[in-house]
Amino acid sequence: MKKIRVAVIGANGYTGGEMVRLLAVHPSVDLTVLTSRQFAGKHITEAFPALRGILDMKLVEPDMGDVAKKCDVAFLAIPHTQAMPIVASLLKAGVRVVDYSADFRLKDPKAYEEWYKSPHTEPALLEKSVCGFPELHAEEIRAAQLVALPGCYPTGAILGLAPAVKNKLINLKEIVINSLSGVSGAGQTPSQKTHFPEISDNLRAYGVTSHRHTPEIEQELSALAGEAVHVLFTPHLVPAIRGILSTITATVLSEISSEKLAETYRQFYRKAPFVRISEPGSYPEIRFVRGSNYCDIGLAYDKRTRKFIAISAIDNLGKGAAGQAVQCMNLMFDLPEESGLRFGGLTP
Amino acid sequence: MKKIRVAVIGANGYTGGEMVRLLAVHPSVDLTVLTSRQFAGKHITEAFPALRGILDMKLVEPDMGDVAKKCDVAFLAIPHTQAMPIVASLLKAGVRVVDYSADFRLKDPKAYEEWYKSPHTEPALLEKSVCGFPELHAEEIRAAQLVALPGCYPTGAILGLAPAVKNKLINLKEIVINSLSGVSGAGQTPSQKTHFPEISDNLRAYGVTSHRHTPEIEQELSALAGEAVHVLFTPHLVPAIRGILSTITATVLSEISSEKLAETYRQFYRKAPFVRISEPGSYPEIRFVRGSNYCDIGLAYDKRTRKFIAISAIDNLGKGAAGQAVQCMNLMFDLPEESGLRFGGLTP
Amino acid sequence: MKKIRVAVIGANGYTGGEMVRLLAVHPSVDLTVLTSRQFAGKHITEAFPALRGILDMKLVEPDMGDVAKKCDVAFLAIPHTQAMPIVASLLKAGVRVVDYSADFRLKDPKAYEEWYKSPHTEPALLEKSVCGFPELHAEEIRAAQLVALPGCYPTGAILGLAPAVKNKLINLKEIVINSLSGVSGAGQTPSQKTHFPEISDNLRAYGVTSHRHTPEIEQELSALAGEAVHVLFTPHLVPAIRGILSTITATVLSEISSEKLAETYRQFYRKAPFVRISEPGSYPEIRFVRGSNYCDIGLAYDKRTRKFIAISAIDNLGKGAAGQAVQCMNLMFDLPEESGLRFGGLTP
Amino acid sequence: MKKIRVAVIGANGYTGGEMVRLLAVHPSVDLTVLTSRQFAGKHITEAFPALRGILDMKLVEPDMGDVAKKCDVAFLAIPHTQAMPIVASLLKAGVRVVDYSADFRLKDPKAYEEWYKSPHTEPALLEKSVCGFPELHAEEIRAAQLVALPGCYPTGAILGLAPAVKNKLINLKEIVINSLSGVSGAGQTPSQKTHFPEISDNLRAYGVTSHRHTPEIEQELSALAGEAVHVLFTPHLVPAIRGILSTITATVLSEISSEKLAETYRQFYRKAPFVRISEPGSYPEIRFVRGSNYCDIGLAYDKRTRKFIAISAIDNLGKGAAGQAVQCMNLMFDLPEESGLRFGGLTP
Repeated sequence: MKKIRVAVIGANGYTGGEMVRLLAVHPSVDLTVLTSRQFAGKHITEAFPALRGILDMKLVEPDMGDVAKKCDVAFLAIPHTQAMPIVASLLKAGVRVVDYSADFRLKDPKAYEEWYKSPHTEPALLEKSVCGFPELHAEEIRAAQLVALPGCYPTGAILGLAPAVKNKLINLKEIVINSLSGVSGAGQTPSQKTHFPEISDNLRAYGVTSHRHTPEIEQELSALAGEAVHVLFTPHLVPAIRGILSTITATVLSEISSEKLAETYRQFYRKAPFVRISEPGSYPEIRFVRGSNYCDIGLAYDKRTRKFIAISAIDNLGKGAAGQAVQCMNLMFDLPEESGLRFGGLTP
Repeated sequence: MKKIRVAVIGANGYTGGEMVRLLAVHPSVDLTVLTSRQFAGKHITEAFPALRGILDMKLVEPDMGDVAKKCDVAFLAIPHTQAMPIVASLLKAGVRVVDYSADFRLKDPKAYEEWYKSPHTEPALLEKSVCGFPELHAEEIRAAQLVALPGCYPTGAILGLAPAVKNKLINLKEIVINSLSGVSGAGQTPSQKTHFPEISDNLRAYGVTSHRHTPEIEQELSALAGEAVHVLFTPHLVPAIRGILSTITATVLSEISSEKLAETYRQFYRKAPFVRISEPGSYPEIRFVRGSNYCDIGLAYDKRTRKFIAISAIDNLGKGAAGQAVQCMNLMFDLPEESGLRFGGLTP
Repeated sequence: MKKIRVAVIGANGYTGGEMVRLLAVHPSVDLTVLTSRQFAGKHITEAFPALRGILDMKLVEPDMGDVAKKCDVAFLAIPHTQAMPIVASLLKAGVRVVDYSADFRLKDPKAYEEWYKSPHTEPALLEKSVCGFPELHAEEIRAAQLVALPGCYPTGAILGLAPAVKNKLINLKEIVINSLSGVSGAGQTPSQKTHFPEISDNLRAYGVTSHRHTPEIEQELSALAGEAVHVLFTPHLVPAIRGILSTITATVLSEISSEKLAETYRQFYRKAPFVRISEPGSYPEIRFVRGSNYCDIGLAYDKRTRKFIAISAIDNLGKGAAGQAVQCMNLMFDLPEESGLRFGGLTP
Repeated sequence: MKKIRVAVIGANGYTGGEMVRLLAVHPSVDLTVLTSRQFAGKHITEAFPALRGILDMKLVEPDMGDVAKKCDVAFLAIPHTQAMPIVASLLKAGVRVVDYSADFRLKDPKAYEEWYKSPHTEPALLEKSVCGFPELHAEEIRAAQLVALPGCYPTGAILGLAPAVKNKLINLKEIVINSLSGVSGAGQTPSQKTHFPEISDNLRAYGVTSHRHTPEIEQELSALAGEAVHVLFTPHLVPAIRGILSTITATVLSEISSEKLAETYRQFYRKAPFVRISEPGSYPEIRFVRGSNYCDIGLAYDKRTRKFIAISAIDNLGKGAAGQAVQCMNLMFDLPEESGLRFGGLTP
């Protein structure tokens, strides 16, 4: 069978590197181009020594004319605002795009400008953009030219909420999402906030009431509900490398049981190979999804406060980024959805 | 000045060890007895090599007759149910007691039996027991014969909520408390759940809807409010040694601002030397209280969801246990409240 | 092609679990039996929730008659002394064995008794036992009925030393090996020494001058040298989950350069797909081998002290245990040596 | 008693901050000036929120004229080359100096230029400089105008070797020092190498054969021995915040026992309140010195390889920097040597 020719644009960061790690051993993929401004001319193993013996390729300057000739699909792992012109030029050249930037996530260019403090230069492409959530948009992804991958926090939060929101089990106006993230979610660029002595043995909240993933979560949940959904999203940075654990609470609209919640979720995700619902009384841990594309979800109902509780766990670089990208590609190219992704978390 | 003679009962665990660490260098304390079933006959530095050069004492079998002769006050760091008879015998002998077990925290012996699955054998003493919260009960503590220290989670949660509850700023029936705890809170005894490879680089919730600290939090907040308060308390175990970060959310009863919240909290805690309120927009981190007796609190109001947010940070062994115990003792013996506790967190 | 039928004996521990993790997705393997005394009757995903969606099997009581019927090769991940009778019975039944216990590593039953304080009950099988080091014994492994896998420390130490010892570049009587190990090397059973608060943010040496892996390292190196080799092996426990970094020093017999050392090592390992020699001036890190079967080695010569330095990095559960086991199986069954093992370390 | 007026120059980094943390609660110290280019005009608690409630001071621009008027002694925690002119101006103004930079450690300005790639602009002051090692130079420190504190690695290494070198127990030409350091030793400035995801769950050696602390260790040990001493020093970065564990090996000149080694060390350090020798068979851990000024040392003799082993543990910011500075100040101002430093490590 002819392999899919894949380019990774921005292959030197954590997300780009994870895409390369997965694509390098994907049975139906031929990695043809890896670009990186910072590492152009260097071997991929200088950026990722872990790939020595696995992949023999050089990183090149990002030249979209060249990229377009050499690939069927391009994975973008570059910062927001930088993705807009590149996506436009690749789509024009007939290349399908799986984009991890925030540039094509929000459907309303004004919302983009409000939250990202930058004008949207390709508003016409927003309509073409499909949200890269296989559990919610599989059919559209199959046909998509442009897939905008959801952010890592939204992936865990939305998967943890979708069945409850769709089935209107909870008050949709005051959902509380507390997320704990490993530090790789902050990217590869070092900063004071990610300096080892200031993360290790420490815990902190950040972006309180103001994190950019809030409108993304609300957009997707509102579309599911058919009405406006409001969430209070509070991310925390914790001393872990990978993983996001989201503890989500909301007031139920009528009494329910933990068992009924689990059943509703199982039913909702019955065709989703990467969502695993825990038995009632059991809750997910990020180590069980480390390095994998799974999302684990545990559910409970608290009678005393009439609260719904969902706890979801993903690997921010896996299901929250590169794994999700590969899963979307599998759909786009009619491959088995689990192709290249069928392995569990690295535990211990 | 004559020093206070202090005994530590159960000096070999993490809480007992932290009490010894603080008391050994307290300027007004003479440590006279350290008991330990497990280490009786051994030197304290075998249990705590960090104390070599600081403290030269042997651990002895717990003999309350002997203890009573040698001390003015006894600190108890032993498991629940074991504290009941010891407290009774010490009080009878005229020794004042600062107890870290759960045995004298819940005022209602039936609540104790329900949550701790064990009968309460000293219900008559429950009335004498004063809750060891200097910020809320300073005057009673000064006069107390028996101080029941609050648990580590309740300390962070209650300090984070007291001013909002007292001033009825929030809906008291559905407060959500998400707490992240370092592993020393689970004690010194090893278990699968605290085995390094299963905690490191991992995150998990536990005791969902059912943790024993729930009634303790509700009892204290209900007393403050003068009406029943209900909380959904979800603890999480995270890869840190010490520290509890609690992210607390509740619906406000009327609009408020982050600034007004901070002001209300500052006013409430104006006489509390160990509570530090963060500037609006700034939030606490556990490293700033590591090893110390401080509780840091940050506050915010989210207009979109009408939610109040309070984030509190303590060291579970410091303000959450041994530091609190020393602070109570300072009050009980008319010492300056900060005596032996005036040092900041070990950062980095 | 007919798949190899594989049993894992002792599938519930870290090493057994890692074997299952690798074998479950190995393209030429059919996992037929998983035994566990502790988890018999339970589903493998109760022991390893990370495998949910990947492997659907129950753990059974270890019944060697049954095992022998169902498999071509058995992987043993059980404690020393327990392996002896099981190996004997499996070999008698015609099943090939890959054993991770220490029972068949030392060729001399007296050495076994000295270091393991237990009599060797199957000395006749010691001759049949082949050391499971593909880089040193590939041909014997291909034909072996019984492969005794080296321990995790010996794997890193011997790979780091073999070319220097074989080529007599160093004084063989006083080699110093300092190894730093992640905590999974201590196994899954919790203990005070592996309790999170006593490992995190801590460092300690243990087994100083007396660790059981010493005779194993010396036996293999002496065989390579054709003369007695003596090493001082000092293991350290560090706050990491997986990985062993060994820093090895020895006095050179004559002047050499770092470049020449690297060249000698590259030549020695030219047919070894899982050994990667670093460029001079560059040194391995355990994150680059995390979860993988690679061994990375960096080399230097210090003119001032006439010392040879080799630094090797492996994943103790990968190349140090389960990965090595799979690599041996690949040889034993004429599969490509890299089959099921061609992936890099999980970084970050 | 009149308090010592102390200035800290460069109070915003980890070492400066630790000096402030210790000096703020030192019973005989009045902190009068804190300088910081980066934080000038800001409150010390903006740089170190842990100090809120403890210290109420602003950081100021470094103006040595002003500093000289306000203090009896200045602690310098600034980068090498920057300390030279500041030390010169302070000494001229009659202020005593405790300097943590490398500028006045090496007695030979040529060695300085070779290792630090910068000319020494104050060679005349090198003679006045006293090595800030209270265990080795107490009398000179008492009288010193300028104390050059040893680096963190040299402190652990030299304390671990001094008695063996002084008593000529070992071959002085090929001592091997393997040191493992927490990341705070790399300072407060973030970098790729100290980015949490690249340190956590990782281990790496660095500066192999070329670390700048090598000549400093050799200078001090050679002075002790009265002959040239050569060491191979290999530092490693490990996932810990504070602490250095040094495992030191050397060939003995004649047979010895672990007991005799311990006895020799105890005798050598009999007047040193901050050096604690472990019982034979017992070894130090960095958690026992965390946050403290202690150095713990364990010793062994390996008969098989005729090797001496010493393992030392310090807190790199404590005994390895700020604690040592305070200890020197205590000597310089005739205070009890333990003043302000009498507390054990923060364990757990």
